[in-house]
Amino acid sequence: MTISEKIFSKASGKTVKAGEFVLANIDRAMTHDITGPLAVEGFYEIMRDKEEKKVWDPSKIVILFDHQVPADSLNAAANHTMLRKFAKEQGIINYDVYEGVCHQVMPEKGHVKPGDLVVGSDSHTCAYGSLGAFSTGIGSTDMAAVFASGKLWFKVPETIRFEVNGKLQKNVYSKDVILHLIGDVGAEGARYQAAEYAGSTVRTMPISERMTVSNMAIEMGGKAGIIEADEVTEKYLQERIPDFKLDPHWKSDEGAVYSEVREYDVSKLEPQVACPHNVDNVKPVGEVEGTKVDQIFVGSCTNGRFEDIEVVAKMMGDEPVAKDVRLLIIPASRTEYMKVLKAGYIEQFMEAGAIVESPCCGPCMGGSFGLLGDGEVGLATSNRNFKGREGSPQSFVYLSSPATAAASALTGEITDPRKI
Amino acid sequence: MTISEKIFSKASGKTVKAGEFVLANIDRAMTHDITGPLAVEGFYEIMRDKEEKKVWDPSKIVILFDHQVPADSLNAAANHTMLRKFAKEQGIINYDVYEGVCHQVMPEKGHVKPGDLVVGSDSHTCAYGSLGAFSTGIGSTDMAAVFASGKLWFKVPETIRFEVNGKLQKNVYSKDVILHLIGDVGAEGARYQAAEYAGSTVRTMPISERMTVSNMAIEMGGKAGIIEADEVTEKYLQERIPDFKLDPHWKSDEGAVYSEVREYDVSKLEPQVACPHNVDNVKPVGEVEGTKVDQIFVGSCTNGRFEDIEVVAKMMGDEPVAKDVRLLIIPASRTEYMKVLKAGYIEQFMEAGAIVESPCCGPCMGGSFGLLGDGEVGLATSNRNFKGREGSPQSFVYLSSPATAAASALTGEITDPRKI
Repeated sequence: MTISEKIFSKASGKTVKAGEFVLANIDRAMTHDITGPLAVEGFYEIMRDKEEKKVWDPSKIVILFDHQVPADSLNAAANHTMLRKFAKEQGIINYDVYEGVCHQVMPEKGHVKPGDLVVGSDSHTCAYGSLGAFSTGIGSTDMAAVFASGKLWFKVPETIRFEVNGKLQKNVYSKDVILHLIGDVGAEGARYQAAEYAGSTVRTMPISERMTVSNMAIEMGGKAGIIEADEVTEKYLQERIPDFKLDPHWKSDEGAVYSEVREYDVSKLEPQVACPHNVDNVKPVGEVEGTKVDQIFVGSCTNGRFEDIEVVAKMMGDEPVAKDVRLLIIPASRTEYMKVLKAGYIEQFMEAGAIVESPCCGPCMGGSFGLLGDGEVGLATSNRNFKGREGSPQSFVYLSSPATAAASALTGEITDPRKI
Repeated sequence: MTISEKIFSKASGKTVKAGEFVLANIDRAMTHDITGPLAVEGFYEIMRDKEEKKVWDPSKIVILFDHQVPADSLNAAANHTMLRKFAKEQGIINYDVYEGVCHQVMPEKGHVKPGDLVVGSDSHTCAYGSLGAFSTGIGSTDMAAVFASGKLWFKVPETIRFEVNGKLQKNVYSKDVILHLIGDVGAEGARYQAAEYAGSTVRTMPISERMTVSNMAIEMGGKAGIIEADEVTEKYLQERIPDFKLDPHWKSDEGAVYSEVREYDVSKLEPQVACPHNVDNVKPVGEVEGTKVDQIFVGSCTNGRFEDIEVVAKMMGDEPVAKDVRLLIIPASRTEYMKVLKAGYIEQFMEAGAIVESPCCGPCMGGSFGLLGDGEVGLATSNRNFKGREGSPQSFVYLSSPATAAASALTGEITDPRKI
């Protein structure tokens, strides 16, 4: 069995295989300030004839505010107010405007563990696959059903296994690996499948790097992006979940059936860049070197962790941000922000002429702040570059690793970080 | 002669008195990302038949981005792009999205000195009166004329003199003084007059405190809010303008004629709070104590300096922000931010559960972020509390000093800082 089949077997109370339809028990449900309000409305619609309008299990739901914080519109303020009230009435944990991006806060606060079936009303919920959970994005109306019943129908997905081997070059990171994989299989290459990442390259990645890889499974159409838990995962979770112990059960068996196994040697992989206007329009950095950039955004659930920001700080050293470039740095959570601050990097970035903001999604979604104007070019460490994603439909977004972003911040144009 | 009559005499090249109309030469013109684009459009409209479309003197114009930074909408992004282009073409200094609030950056960077006639397309341009300049807010179309000609028509204003004496109690600040004055004379009490602040209380204020007093002259209808330059001003300016020397000319003469002289003894003044929905609806804090607040904003050109934020840091100590309160701290400029950071206060605030953002106007104008929702109550150190100013027209904004804001952040309700 694959790890996904095992998780759905546990969640449905019977042994199931890829292709079967199951009604599965949800271990954890996450919603945020953009998709939450519709889920709450849907929940009350489902419960309209019940006397007690209570969610199935408040301890298994988490609400976070991250997309529009601090409230950037009257609508956002109203959404926050409504969700605060709902969380309070129902006894649900609510991380308010100061805590950070959902996909960083959820693992950080110990809400996810291997073998869990987690749903979130956000497409990058697949990020928690980095801890060996089956974790997937669902719509707000599905989330309403989860709030009411704690269950959801799924087709148990087939698994496409990515065997990634080889030692990455200096200044090449997991973001380059996942961009390469996405470019290779295409935006629909793993549609409704669990992407399973394995191989020596993945095994040697710290959790921060694994999160990037799992996070972007959706960009190849994946339903999940799973990395089997190991001693690296165990260490990460022992610091967050009391008495956590690694359960060897949550691994794909030797004889597991995959829809496909794809093998990659990444030892010579160049830094990769996803070019406008699709995430799978991936090129080696050499092909886009010299492209002038107006704004560089380092942050998001994909690459907004301390380790990501440290790469930028170390590469920039005492150098200033290039003239006419705006560098925005937004740590993905309060916890990550504090690490960045204590390492002296916020001081360094501000001295260099960057802008550092409190934890939030920032420009990633193009709705809050840091929007690109007509004709502007952005480079971002986030996960999507669709037309208008970061502002004007007449702007251009490139996606890269933090290292490539840092190198480009120094020169003002897309730059190979191996040359800095 | 009053200092204002002296400044207009210099600016018009003849000796003039209050009530006369003059065409005055502008020493410095400031515009920002909200009002700038219309000024630029107006400028090109004026210049439409000229071959050389050049501003009168690029070295006397300053453009800053502060109200919507980083760009919070496509419109803001377009405004920034347009102003960047204009500044570059014309050779005008342009402080981009990372520098801070106009009224903090202008004095900080040495763009204002005693005796100057300064105009800015922002109502709180009166702030620079704290350095002995005649400084006033004008509309974008007037600014277009200034861009083209460097001149503007004025009626030389009469002067209302506020003689403020007495040593302020502990935890009572210049913000309490100016709120008290505004409450006393009302929102139109100084209409089209220069408010001149004098007396021992004003003399003993550092520049940071004086800026608060001058900044709010417009809230009593004042055309300017002047404090005669003295050795405190001299010290401040010598750190910013090479070879600056105090010129004793820029003072109101002994026999100067005032429309009115008002005397205040502030030695027993309580902390003051401007209540919804008018700045002149001022009450001693005791009358509104216990009012629950949802959000507290410390920042803005009125009270976003290091000294303001230090008051908050020292009063809060190691205590956390009260439950269910959002505390937003936004230093008014990059320079102030660095001082706050190096003093360890950003770490302290973030640990306490506050949100610290890069320098900008923040929620002051209710257009960028930190908006209040329906029914919410905000306390702010900024300068206006009109209906909807900080978000929803169904929200309520109280204005206070940073000390009162800090005391209230600890308790979650409006609190007398003398009791902490």
